[in-house]
Amino acid sequence: MQGLIEEMFLPAFGKGESAPSVPHDSAVLPIDSGRMAFTTDSFVVHPMFFPGGDIGRLAVYGTVNDLAMAGAKPLGLSAGFILEEGLEIETLRRVVESMAVAAAEVGVRIVTGDTKVVDRGKGDGIFINTAGIGAVPEGIDVSPSRVEPGDAVLVSGDLGRHGIAVMSVREGLEFEGALESDCASLAGLVEAMLAAGRDVHCLRDLTRGGLAAALNEIARHAQVGIELEEAAIPVAEPVAGACELLGLDPLYVANEGRLVAFVPAEAAEKVLEIMRSHTGKKGAGPICRDGPKGTSHKLDLSPFSSFSSAAIIGTVTAERPGTVELRGVLGGGRIVDLLSGEQMPRIC
Amino acid sequence: MQGLIEEMFLPAFGKGESAPSVPHDSAVLPIDSGRMAFTTDSFVVHPMFFPGGDIGRLAVYGTVNDLAMAGAKPLGLSAGFILEEGLEIETLRRVVESMAVAAAEVGVRIVTGDTKVVDRGKGDGIFINTAGIGAVPEGIDVSPSRVEPGDAVLVSGDLGRHGIAVMSVREGLEFEGALESDCASLAGLVEAMLAAGRDVHCLRDLTRGGLAAALNEIARHAQVGIELEEAAIPVAEPVAGACELLGLDPLYVANEGRLVAFVPAEAAEKVLEIMRSHTGKKGAGPICRDGPKGTSHKLDLSPFSSFSSAAIIGTVTAERPGTVELRGVLGGGRIVDLLSGEQMPRIC
Repeated sequence: MQGLIEEMFLPAFGKGESAPSVPHDSAVLPIDSGRMAFTTDSFVVHPMFFPGGDIGRLAVYGTVNDLAMAGAKPLGLSAGFILEEGLEIETLRRVVESMAVAAAEVGVRIVTGDTKVVDRGKGDGIFINTAGIGAVPEGIDVSPSRVEPGDAVLVSGDLGRHGIAVMSVREGLEFEGALESDCASLAGLVEAMLAAGRDVHCLRDLTRGGLAAALNEIARHAQVGIELEEAAIPVAEPVAGACELLGLDPLYVANEGRLVAFVPAEAAEKVLEIMRSHTGKKGAGPICRDGPKGTSHKLDLSPFSSFSSAAIIGTVTAERPGTVELRGVLGGGRIVDLLSGEQMPRIC
Repeated sequence: MQGLIEEMFLPAFGKGESAPSVPHDSAVLPIDSGRMAFTTDSFVVHPMFFPGGDIGRLAVYGTVNDLAMAGAKPLGLSAGFILEEGLEIETLRRVVESMAVAAAEVGVRIVTGDTKVVDRGKGDGIFINTAGIGAVPEGIDVSPSRVEPGDAVLVSGDLGRHGIAVMSVREGLEFEGALESDCASLAGLVEAMLAAGRDVHCLRDLTRGGLAAALNEIARHAQVGIELEEAAIPVAEPVAGACELLGLDPLYVANEGRLVAFVPAEAAEKVLEIMRSHTGKKGAGPICRDGPKGTSHKLDLSPFSSFSSAAIIGTVTAERPGTVELRGVLGGGRIVDLLSGEQMPRIC
């Protein structure tokens, strides 16, 4: 364990001026008074490597994104690894390097960590937990309780790429055209939105359960109705095609680099412009694109890194509090419910 | 998942004034400026229930103790669960309640969490990650880099109870007399030590690898020698007996509620007195003592909750930097090395 820490984790995560010279039970960070966001997520995605990302990137982006959804600027991450006995050290190294690249890209450091090993058959390669702390700037109040009738509902890009990218590897599917996970940090985008001085009422990243799960939760907790325009919801052609093939509804498919934003109607066009012009960058480092053994799959892997497909997709109403309704192209409406089971397991 | 959160986690963890009324991606906590400690640990102990504790208690105490070792007062914990498909909900409930009791006892809240489910055979019941944040009071500087020749070395109680308690269940051993895990919060003890105004140079909780691992790390990083008096190291009779039987060295056996402290020689007696008179309490709530199916084992389970066996066990020297030496009862010395493998896997 000592060896792992000194030969792999410290070189990957310990760079930078404030790197602790002496390992200690806790990282100690200087902080300003105010409000601090604190969040955690575990990652068990299967397979660990998929088009456009891997479990290491997800573990960094996922927690950074949860902090960003509270309007917080990430200060530091923790990383807890649960490794299955027999795991190839090279696989771990690739994941750790991927985390380091993602963290550098976001500008956040992994400041504390832990590793446990479980017997063969009692884990599945690598599970990662990350927790994160972030500072919420003065005057920022981004929360589901601020959602109100009249708010516009925006998504930061087309839906379902992550879920379909992971399923495609798992099911051995081959698609024509580009299909990569959307996994990315949303911290930069949120910073740009807040810096523009727009009053953002609520943000939510779209992960497990997709747009449908996020909107249902918010509608329920804010006790508002949400009306979506089906025609306005962006879904890329290969995702739409794969969903048809697999019998999935893109509204429920997981994303890992998309958010839904609630803003006052009068700010909607301006926020949309900020989203569309924002360029999410995917670090300079290597993106892990195939499995540890060099298994490959016939997918166009051109980097996916833009929010240019962002859209205004609906409005908040006072009617039917707690429900999400989808208005079809022909005018009919249907309720978008919470699924009782998981459409796709182990997607993050 | 929604059901789990609302029916199990929120009722157990969401009590108290500052409980968030609306679930959100991050918890947001008010903080004062200064220094913040941040730490994480994953828990994979097998079996999940053992004499004197369970995985839930360990997950709370372990992270609280890591914060305390930096002199920090715990502010909040996160909890990430990885559940194996097929886990009995009643087992999860017992673990969650146990965490709630332990957190209440320490006076810290579990403010954010996450749950993932993995397929049967890809996990092992319940894995828990906790991360914690804590405030380091002004003027407190507890760190391995402050250890210096002349410092006295103290342990807060007799060694090896946790490791032997877990092994006893795993191996189906029966012992005469009391043998419970020492698992406990050290936050109260550390608070009492620091409140007495003694200049505590360094604290380290004794977990995996026991006293030997902790001292070797500190000796190496502080570049000092550590000399221990074998006769002064407290080991309870049933632990000593079990170690003999199992071929284990108590210096390497895991603890979950013990610390080693480095203090100036002139403060040693006073700190020892504080330790011995401190009563670690083990909450009012139920302690899970046997497996989920009511499997029991013939152990005297009288609550173990005292630091009365604390002792001064050695001194720091300038000689042989980086090494730990044990002086035997007859005067001979031997080097206490780091083990290259794990003496006991999945002990926490």
